[in-house]
Amino acid sequence: MSSPSPLFHTLAVIGPGLIGSSLLRRAQQNPAIAQRLIAIDQSADVLERVKSLGIADQVTTSLAEGVQEADIVVSCIPTGAVASVAQQALPHMKSGSILSDVASVRSTITQEIVPHLPSDITYVPVHPMAGTEYSGPDAGFSTLFEERWCLLIPPESTSSSAIERVETLWQLCGARTRRVEAHYHDQICAMVSHLPHLLAFTICDTADRLSTDLRADVLDYAASGFRDFTRIAGSDPVMWRDIFLANRDIILQTLERFQGETAKMAEAIRTGDRDAITERIERGRRIRLSLLENRQA
Amino acid sequence: MSSPSPLFHTLAVIGPGLIGSSLLRRAQQNPAIAQRLIAIDQSADVLERVKSLGIADQVTTSLAEGVQEADIVVSCIPTGAVASVAQQALPHMKSGSILSDVASVRSTITQEIVPHLPSDITYVPVHPMAGTEYSGPDAGFSTLFEERWCLLIPPESTSSSAIERVETLWQLCGARTRRVEAHYHDQICAMVSHLPHLLAFTICDTADRLSTDLRADVLDYAASGFRDFTRIAGSDPVMWRDIFLANRDIILQTLERFQGETAKMAEAIRTGDRDAITERIERGRRIRLSLLENRQA
Repeated sequence: MSSPSPLFHTLAVIGPGLIGSSLLRRAQQNPAIAQRLIAIDQSADVLERVKSLGIADQVTTSLAEGVQEADIVVSCIPTGAVASVAQQALPHMKSGSILSDVASVRSTITQEIVPHLPSDITYVPVHPMAGTEYSGPDAGFSTLFEERWCLLIPPESTSSSAIERVETLWQLCGARTRRVEAHYHDQICAMVSHLPHLLAFTICDTADRLSTDLRADVLDYAASGFRDFTRIAGSDPVMWRDIFLANRDIILQTLERFQGETAKMAEAIRTGDRDAITERIERGRRIRLSLLENRQA
Repeated sequence: MSSPSPLFHTLAVIGPGLIGSSLLRRAQQNPAIAQRLIAIDQSADVLERVKSLGIADQVTTSLAEGVQEADIVVSCIPTGAVASVAQQALPHMKSGSILSDVASVRSTITQEIVPHLPSDITYVPVHPMAGTEYSGPDAGFSTLFEERWCLLIPPESTSSSAIERVETLWQLCGARTRRVEAHYHDQICAMVSHLPHLLAFTICDTADRLSTDLRADVLDYAASGFRDFTRIAGSDPVMWRDIFLANRDIILQTLERFQGETAKMAEAIRTGDRDAITERIERGRRIRLSLLENRQA
């Protein structure tokens, strides 16, 4: 019995970290995705780990060599490097191939890549909304994308057959897919991900600046709410610095709105306005209850 | 074989909600705690549930009747009601008995209770640092306090034998105990619990005020960090309104410090100061790493 031919002949992943190595693991388990898997990284150590893990058929530190035979190249590197690495990779990619990346900020990055796109290569960036606070090739796992959203954010007038192939790729990884517009994408992510991370880093930073005694006790008693805020504060610093810079305007707008609401809550507490405090808490709870109804929590 | 006599003859719990019913459950499982358990609540429905659950020997809506035979009365009601209910209960309590409560703010509440204390009743307030976002008698469970901290915050010159008995009570519930001073307690809790809750309510409130489309999508994509912040935003509104008011000054100071750090992070993002952003993220991560080392996360 012959198996049907896979979606892609050769899949190359640039940056086999948490996301990239999870994609490779999944592709290795599911032969419908690709026949041949290539891992590209500037770090020989990372590639050594990939080899030991046995999740790629070929590994290389050479971007040119790694992308040249690929039918699809998925760049899974920190947001700040995506555009320049894309520009370096594109001249070596073959006609008819697809370039993709998984950066979690779209508007600014897509604008930097599109002008460099040859007419025979299609660019279909995605954002798999999955992750943990860990990084590196050992952090990945093949079910990372299972039941998670993968948003597709193709530039205007991208060929729909290329979009469909990328959509199928992520569905084969277990993800639910949806196409969204870049600016809207960045607004959603500012609220659901970028602002929470900014606040998580900052509340931890605030705690870190406490007197030694208080700081030690905060750590001892962290179970009382603080701990929830700290999980995501363990995330990769370079990745997050890049995201904050790439989505700067929208994040600052979202933060400003949040700071405005925080100031109103502080004022209600200061003046002892019981009704205003309760109303604000109740509004917040509504979101939590909606999440429970949606089985997202 | 006769069992040794229990720590208390009669234990009365005012407010058999999450904390109160967990204490009753534990006392029922562990005969070393008390021989007789009384549940007091103003709601007949709550007492019906307590009866059905079979976690008290006697239930009553009468505060006077409920406390009069108790060797220890533990008030497990929202922070805002603790002082006035204590004042109502004290005249009916018997000589030599102990009054306790589990309010998570100390300085203000203790000040309101101490002047009403008869010389033959000892006041030993505690703060079991345990809980979930659920409330009511059905939310409790006997292992809630297991391996969690229970802080003891007795007023100055409280008899040490009473303190020791209360300490033993919580150790029999599985908790680790520690004595702390009231103002210091309120500072710790502002950082580890009150500020995180205030921010969680406010980020949810901010999301709730978004346009209908964005709000719906925020719910869909909540897994990306936002969800972590919403769990504690499901907590009881009256309880939290009361805490915010009772610990007003310290919470506002802690919030101000946090807002200051947030403004500095926003400025670093606005001006594109990569080093400052990274340094702030790294500081935040340090706390997370310390938590992991402490096995608190």
